[in-house]
Amino acid sequence: VTEGFLPLREWVCGHIASFAGFRPTSEQVLITTGSQQALDLMARAFVDPGDTVLAENPAYFGAIQAFRAAETKLVGVASDAQGMLPGALEEAIQSACTPVKLLYLVPNFQNPTGATMTMERRREIAHVAARFDLPIFEDDPYGRLRFSGEEIPAICSLPEAGTATYLGTSSKILAPGLRVAWLVVRDPSLFEKIVPLKQASDLHTSAFTQQIVHGFVSDTTRFGSHLSALIAAYRERRDAMLAALGDHMPEGCTWTRPDGGMFLWVTLPESIDATHLLQHARAHKIAFVPGEPFWLDAPKRNTLRLNFSHTPAAKTGVGIARLAALIRGCS
Amino acid sequence: VTEGFLPLREWVCGHIASFAGFRPTSEQVLITTGSQQALDLMARAFVDPGDTVLAENPAYFGAIQAFRAAETKLVGVASDAQGMLPGALEEAIQSACTPVKLLYLVPNFQNPTGATMTMERRREIAHVAARFDLPIFEDDPYGRLRFSGEEIPAICSLPEAGTATYLGTSSKILAPGLRVAWLVVRDPSLFEKIVPLKQASDLHTSAFTQQIVHGFVSDTTRFGSHLSALIAAYRERRDAMLAALGDHMPEGCTWTRPDGGMFLWVTLPESIDATHLLQHARAHKIAFVPGEPFWLDAPKRNTLRLNFSHTPAAKTGVGIARLAALIRGCS
Repeated sequence: VTEGFLPLREWVCGHIASFAGFRPTSEQVLITTGSQQALDLMARAFVDPGDTVLAENPAYFGAIQAFRAAETKLVGVASDAQGMLPGALEEAIQSACTPVKLLYLVPNFQNPTGATMTMERRREIAHVAARFDLPIFEDDPYGRLRFSGEEIPAICSLPEAGTATYLGTSSKILAPGLRVAWLVVRDPSLFEKIVPLKQASDLHTSAFTQQIVHGFVSDTTRFGSHLSALIAAYRERRDAMLAALGDHMPEGCTWTRPDGGMFLWVTLPESIDATHLLQHARAHKIAFVPGEPFWLDAPKRNTLRLNFSHTPAAKTGVGIARLAALIRGCS
Repeated sequence: VTEGFLPLREWVCGHIASFAGFRPTSEQVLITTGSQQALDLMARAFVDPGDTVLAENPAYFGAIQAFRAAETKLVGVASDAQGMLPGALEEAIQSACTPVKLLYLVPNFQNPTGATMTMERRREIAHVAARFDLPIFEDDPYGRLRFSGEEIPAICSLPEAGTATYLGTSSKILAPGLRVAWLVVRDPSLFEKIVPLKQASDLHTSAFTQQIVHGFVSDTTRFGSHLSALIAAYRERRDAMLAALGDHMPEGCTWTRPDGGMFLWVTLPESIDATHLLQHARAHKIAFVPGEPFWLDAPKRNTLRLNFSHTPAAKTGVGIARLAALIRGCS
């Protein structure tokens, strides 16, 4: 079935209802071959070549790739620590050179910055989008990985967000190699365009991997304790990285303090280019992702993304100390 | 890795060398999420909206979907029992209204007709394509399922077919639900366009299912005996269906006699519409696919596709007798 394995789609409905503030029906759920396919399908369904798509700046690189493959004009909207700025969104919509077809958002523990939109900001953004009839595409790969602070309902749960689309995945809570994600639409008529595209793209997502995911997540006890273990491990690693950054980083560096997810975002002194820094980093056996490719426009080359989920807490201090020494050497 | 699991790509090289008349290197192999994704990637990489793609008429419905999703103008080229007619191909190229970007062919046990192109015809078609610099896309899902007649080398093995692309899959020899196929290019520079599109589409094909396929096929003895068992079972079922058609079908019906694959193609008396016939078939607990959606133009509504691989030989006679009775009732 192109739409996906029905028991998994039914599980998705209850899963979303347990945290996101709305309960879809299985007719509103399409299983995709990972989140990347959903990004690709959304780009192809919503956008014609040359149309504008708005997103946070910086934004998730996989989304940038999918929208660029659809020959979209991607425009970045300024954000602060509470998420996208409603005034900047309104200005971006009004000053766009081509029709604005989609607003792409990662409200929880954004990749690359780790920022989370407050409830107030979600409402304001949904309100601006609704005024301009702009559909929202809410991508939530990290939402289940919250280590601190309170759960915030999805933008899709808001009455203003009537045509919003929500994307969840098994990649960050189970295994990325299985390539199983779920696209949830508020308005099922959207599937009249998306399901034929999904069929033309790969017929259906592997029935085998869908059943593996379903087999795992539908055992509520096992899935719950797996998630708790994941959260505990990542929280410890985040805390270790934040402590090490405080201990080692030189004057002039700042970084975000995410309440969940996998990444934090470092801003270096303006004179330092993180892409150049990476070339030296390899010799010291440390790795990070330079910020440059995440920017939709006006790239700040003195930014970089750190992944805290991968490195055991005991090793983080050594790595951050080496990074700090490297930055000092470049200053 | 977007290109796929290296041991599987290396196995694909030896596998192809064992029957197709050429040996690719692993740099020429991209693992895709089923053949359908390869069709989608090829359509997006080779064709701009409005461009012409040529194919057999009738053609595989999944390919029709992928090319239509890319807003391609699909034009059918006339064929006989030996495959596409070189003169008709030349005429189609010369009379196309928009640039002709790709020639899509299923030379072995074609879906839906079951026809196989002779070696002579492969050479002639490759020669015409080469004269017009038209890249060939050779789709070979059923090639390993030969029950009778001699193996014929792939079009991709011919010196004339320098820019041809070959598509193989695990779906018909192992399990369609795993979604693992392989796209093989003669010219690796094609991957400069296709690999970024693959990355934008789904990052990579499930590492888990790729390793399952590799684990199965790389055990040469087990894979060999699995394939032999499959061929023996399908041969028996094809023979049973051909015998039953001969026993039961009324005057005025003709059908193909495939040397392999899964399908044969029936032409009914001109007055009978197979789509209407199907509505009555359900009440008699028989099923077939009406021919109409396979035609690129000039649909012959008195055609239908029968799958012989699914039904155990002992049950085929009853089904064909019911189909024959239904046809008699409509005549």
